[in-house]
Amino acid sequence: MTSSFYPPQRTLMGPGPSDVSSRVLGALCRPTIGHLDPKFLQLMDEVKALLQFAFQTDHALTLPISAPGSAGMEACFVNLVSPGDTVIVCQNGVFGGRMKENVERCGGIAVMVEDTWGEPVSLDKVEAAFSEHPKAAIVAFVHAETSTGVRSDAAAICALAARHNALSIVDAVTSLGGIELSIDKWGADAAYSGTQKCLSCVPGISPVTFSDRAVERIKARTHKVQSWFLDMQLVMGYWGEGSKRAYHHTAPVNALYGLHEALVMLEEEGLNASHARHLRNHRALVAGLEAMGLGMAVAPQDRLPQLNSVLVPEGVDEAAVRSALLEQFDLEIGAGLGALAGKTWRIGLMGFASNERNVLFCLNSLESVLKAQSANITSGAALSAAQASLSAA
Amino acid sequence: MTSSFYPPQRTLMGPGPSDVSSRVLGALCRPTIGHLDPKFLQLMDEVKALLQFAFQTDHALTLPISAPGSAGMEACFVNLVSPGDTVIVCQNGVFGGRMKENVERCGGIAVMVEDTWGEPVSLDKVEAAFSEHPKAAIVAFVHAETSTGVRSDAAAICALAARHNALSIVDAVTSLGGIELSIDKWGADAAYSGTQKCLSCVPGISPVTFSDRAVERIKARTHKVQSWFLDMQLVMGYWGEGSKRAYHHTAPVNALYGLHEALVMLEEEGLNASHARHLRNHRALVAGLEAMGLGMAVAPQDRLPQLNSVLVPEGVDEAAVRSALLEQFDLEIGAGLGALAGKTWRIGLMGFASNERNVLFCLNSLESVLKAQSANITSGAALSAAQASLSAA
Repeated sequence: MTSSFYPPQRTLMGPGPSDVSSRVLGALCRPTIGHLDPKFLQLMDEVKALLQFAFQTDHALTLPISAPGSAGMEACFVNLVSPGDTVIVCQNGVFGGRMKENVERCGGIAVMVEDTWGEPVSLDKVEAAFSEHPKAAIVAFVHAETSTGVRSDAAAICALAARHNALSIVDAVTSLGGIELSIDKWGADAAYSGTQKCLSCVPGISPVTFSDRAVERIKARTHKVQSWFLDMQLVMGYWGEGSKRAYHHTAPVNALYGLHEALVMLEEEGLNASHARHLRNHRALVAGLEAMGLGMAVAPQDRLPQLNSVLVPEGVDEAAVRSALLEQFDLEIGAGLGALAGKTWRIGLMGFASNERNVLFCLNSLESVLKAQSANITSGAALSAAQASLSAA
Repeated sequence: MTSSFYPPQRTLMGPGPSDVSSRVLGALCRPTIGHLDPKFLQLMDEVKALLQFAFQTDHALTLPISAPGSAGMEACFVNLVSPGDTVIVCQNGVFGGRMKENVERCGGIAVMVEDTWGEPVSLDKVEAAFSEHPKAAIVAFVHAETSTGVRSDAAAICALAARHNALSIVDAVTSLGGIELSIDKWGADAAYSGTQKCLSCVPGISPVTFSDRAVERIKARTHKVQSWFLDMQLVMGYWGEGSKRAYHHTAPVNALYGLHEALVMLEEEGLNASHARHLRNHRALVAGLEAMGLGMAVAPQDRLPQLNSVLVPEGVDEAAVRSALLEQFDLEIGAGLGALAGKTWRIGLMGFASNERNVLFCLNSLESVLKAQSANITSGAALSAAQASLSAA
């Protein structure tokens, strides 16, 4: 016989999932109701409005896809890319590569704009790609690269796409709630996110938004969307306006209770306050890490406050450090991915997990583990540097 | 400002979601841990083993897709259907039509075998379809049609597919846990289910299983699976054997806590005991409904114990009855779908919701609402008939 599963109580400071507040966990386990219950339709309307607030958009087609961020990405591509379309894909980390896969599986042609991992997307290279491919239908890029901790200039890339009469697809998985994401002001046409990053909800749902221009493109399709589950014209029938809803799939009812609560918390705090909190805790963490003698992998102006790529010191076994943090302190931080595997750690300060307690706990724990591994670090300076930064902010 | 959402406490006797036990709700809100945490990998291994038990299979490729049943369906089709493949699709309700959509969006040719809604799939017609299309690659059918409450002979259809060297795809959304589902004994090649029916977990996850023969077919593909998110070769890298797991997507951690607990409960009860419980409560419900003077839409030998299609009496406004049940008794039952819309109600007795209390509560509530609507029913006989049936069983 299998026993019930009781997870340990971790502190989640990796690339997501991030710590989930007890308010969200408490919402998750409220009694399940039907996916067509009038009370549930009311919840759906509130979730849509809250997502419009979070994305800073009036787009009518703004809703949560009933699957993780990878499916939200796929929803954007399968609905907007038709066979034969040229799509400019910017890659400066893991997730650009995944976009390429999506484009090609839709029968599109991916024109890659490659930048070094750890640096932002180069606007000049995107402009050059348009010179070579003036008929490109779409530009796709990652706003906040979770694999490297880099922020790209989403406003400028969206503007560039619009100037070339192309749609923009924005990977906002790690940006939503943590840094400015102004879909309407920037003129972004499609964006997808996840619930387990700066919204600090449990993983499993992907908020998406599509502009009217994107919806026109979808309605004008002559080739059926290859995914039935992610076909936005069908999904709209269930999530659409009013009390008339066509059954499409059974919504993940309790997961949406959780998302609703997480968004209510974001609304209560306010977007600007949330962004300021992320920035303040990031600065304190960096001050502490640098006082310890550790270096950051990303240039200051390109750093994401919610995802901090730290250089692993010479001679240190990075995996052993992560294991020790998990075993001794129940603290999860992330490994580097792809080109940065083995070279960086990724320390998340996302959503509910972005707080002073976590900053100080992480610095203390990391210092203790690094000392045990005889790493060449400066002892006893991190905490006061972080505290000074917090006091100054 | 938006307020927190507090759902009403319903009794869920529709076509799913069904009532969720407090054990499963309690598991959902345990602390979130990382999707690559060693403790989470242990949970994943247990979930796979428990699903093998539930599906009665040794298939190594048995796991939960991180999205609802509709995505599980799509996972089976996008991985097994290559462009140009002929697929025999049996339709005797809503979900056969959805299978056809899936086949066509994969570039396959759907050969439809149509049966009247409310009747099982005809083996003779499937045989005839093979005579016309001897090269058909796949037969797809619904084991337990949620839209009508009909059980088809899955063992016979799978055997017929094997005889013609075709793979079988079984929609087991409503059957898993409620009636016999013997994947290995029947030689089924692929099956998908949902969590919110007879497993009585919250909606949002889709257990799937693929035979070795199906896995060979997937590995031999020359055309990439059109869905990146549902590409089983990539999903396998995360759910595969041992401690080496490649990140694919972020698993819905807390939803999997819930599924694990629901499966532990099924293991504790035992499959045979669960099937017997479903049958016993079904017989009591039907005894009560018939004593009230209501008729069933499906012939006795074809009925699903977990989903009971009841004929709406002449002159009764079926939607008003459902609304009254919801408003006065917090009781959800389902409407008829498609060809049966307006003609039937669907009363679920699924998983945790299949219990004596619900049978008696539903009969009492329905009698009260029908009397208020001046329907021509026999009063005061339903409860004793149901109780007699329960005592006799």
